[in-house]
Amino acid sequence: MCNSCVMLFDDRERSILPEFTALPKLKSGEILVKNKYATLCGSDLHTFTGRRKEPSPIVLGHEIVGEIIEMASNEPFYDLNGNILKLGDIVTWTIFAAPNEDEFVKDKMPQKSASLFKYGHVKFTKEEKFNGGLGTHCVLKKGTGILKVPSSINEKFAPIINCAGATAMAAFRLIDKIENKNVLILGAGVLGLIASSIAEQKKAASVTVFDIDKDRLEKSKSFGAKYIYNALSPIEELENIMSQFYKKGFDVIIDMSGSVDAIKTGLKYSAIGTQHIWIGAVTPTEDIAVNPEMMIRKLLSIKGMHNYNFEDFVNAVSFFEEHFSAYPFQTFIEKEFELKETKEAFEYAVKYKPFRVLINI
Amino acid sequence: MCNSCVMLFDDRERSILPEFTALPKLKSGEILVKNKYATLCGSDLHTFTGRRKEPSPIVLGHEIVGEIIEMASNEPFYDLNGNILKLGDIVTWTIFAAPNEDEFVKDKMPQKSASLFKYGHVKFTKEEKFNGGLGTHCVLKKGTGILKVPSSINEKFAPIINCAGATAMAAFRLIDKIENKNVLILGAGVLGLIASSIAEQKKAASVTVFDIDKDRLEKSKSFGAKYIYNALSPIEELENIMSQFYKKGFDVIIDMSGSVDAIKTGLKYSAIGTQHIWIGAVTPTEDIAVNPEMMIRKLLSIKGMHNYNFEDFVNAVSFFEEHFSAYPFQTFIEKEFELKETKEAFEYAVKYKPFRVLINI
Repeated sequence: MCNSCVMLFDDRERSILPEFTALPKLKSGEILVKNKYATLCGSDLHTFTGRRKEPSPIVLGHEIVGEIIEMASNEPFYDLNGNILKLGDIVTWTIFAAPNEDEFVKDKMPQKSASLFKYGHVKFTKEEKFNGGLGTHCVLKKGTGILKVPSSINEKFAPIINCAGATAMAAFRLIDKIENKNVLILGAGVLGLIASSIAEQKKAASVTVFDIDKDRLEKSKSFGAKYIYNALSPIEELENIMSQFYKKGFDVIIDMSGSVDAIKTGLKYSAIGTQHIWIGAVTPTEDIAVNPEMMIRKLLSIKGMHNYNFEDFVNAVSFFEEHFSAYPFQTFIEKEFELKETKEAFEYAVKYKPFRVLINI
Repeated sequence: MCNSCVMLFDDRERSILPEFTALPKLKSGEILVKNKYATLCGSDLHTFTGRRKEPSPIVLGHEIVGEIIEMASNEPFYDLNGNILKLGDIVTWTIFAAPNEDEFVKDKMPQKSASLFKYGHVKFTKEEKFNGGLGTHCVLKKGTGILKVPSSINEKFAPIINCAGATAMAAFRLIDKIENKNVLILGAGVLGLIASSIAEQKKAASVTVFDIDKDRLEKSKSFGAKYIYNALSPIEELENIMSQFYKKGFDVIIDMSGSVDAIKTGLKYSAIGTQHIWIGAVTPTEDIAVNPEMMIRKLLSIKGMHNYNFEDFVNAVSFFEEHFSAYPFQTFIEKEFELKETKEAFEYAVKYKPFRVLINI
């Protein structure tokens, strides 16, 4: 097992190192969840391969679904939709916990709270053990946004919602009116394809997906893409798509790829009023040259988004509740592993680059 | 008289060159206005000095107020607020005309219409004569947004509204909630000070004005600025202001200066969630390096705006109608010239850089 993804011992083995593995005594406002499923997010893989720095040892995994098995007090707990929570509920939760009284939370940017706690991103210690998806349990801290998983959503897909799903949804909060707009999505990974389906459901005039992988581009057609463009093909193919729109360019360009080349191509092909949404580039990248006069004369905007807020998470779960069967979301789970096969799961994910691997806990 | 600001002959002289000076026969949908006042905008000065290219000869001037003296047909004409227009009304109008059926107009970007007409920006010909502020008359074309000048606004200030005023107002359409936000305004010119007063009226938590001219900075205190920062002073003074805010930086930074150095300073001091609005840089500037990961992790946005739309113009006139007496807007007019002194007015404006000179027509 790699030392950056500690897996907590299952019930039979819990007695071996009790100070590291004993189930915790809950504090006020806390909920204990028995993890059911976790998926490995791109950022988990970046940590595994060293492209991204996290403390070590660590319980990785933040795309998680589990069952409530204990609640701290006799006070009622509610999910973000105001439903009362009870033992046995299958829930998913925000990747972060942030106190209500924090100024960033009041400003609807809880993911940037000064006292942020992030699941699957915390050094493993005797005190902080049960906080990631690659473990048997998770303690949900006060200030975590919790939602029951609606019955229309397959539980094995559900872990994807609280990271990729909610982040894709956050893009749409930044867009000034998506209805009837021509949208370009850079990157046909999980975020890009979810964004494509959301754009279609929000009545975009058209969705074009841009990638360099022809299988993923082909797949994007099942996720609402009307046009696809392989970035390895001549640029005229992209220009032909744009020539159909009255402004000869896209109204909205969402980058989910994190590729500087893709972002630059998007900027270069700005039409009047193009809204650029940058989400993918969460690892160090080179700077991009932006011309102020062009930004002004073309009425352009660039908006960055990292993670999401409570509203985006609620909207994401509602979106999948309503549209889960309309798109082949289930196919994102390309392979399933047991918790004890976590290392193999990482290696498989790094080698074959599936949309997602599932850890069945 | 410079060859880039043709002034049309007054009534006594109109007989001299009738093909150039005869009053026009109106086409359907057109209104003839006798210009009363025009102010010289920064972009007029840029054209005069050659920093900006416009066709020549030209009737410059697009900040204009005049009196309706003829209307094309017996059909009723309405202003943007739905008031019926009649002979004798004192009006101001958008710097552009754009046909209703244009896609950009439907998209609320009329200033980018494919068939845009811009007052004070058109080559002077026998057919196109009366279209600028530095002339006796103006023909308002179909697709122009017209507004009656409310009685609470001094007519000599009113020309400033349809360019600087409406452009400053456009900034606020781009801002996601200004109430309770800490705002930095780069540039204490007419646009900056109007923006400062709008921000105060829209209940910003604080307004800071940034410039290199100490008189203008001092003046900005009368326009709602709580803090001022002279960009020639040590940066610690700016940091001291920011240290008072919970996020240790500004929520909103509006550039009205067009200075690349100012824009770079604004970007450098981005806090979490800072919204950057770029309006000033309407002449060629160097590129600015923007880091995608920083844009994303800090939840930053950059939005460019050029001119304004009909809604901004309506909001600007309403703003001045309500708040004209609350700020010393009248002091923007630092010197007054007659139409025949237009050349002197330009020379004075270039030499002394007043907020505005007025041409009394």
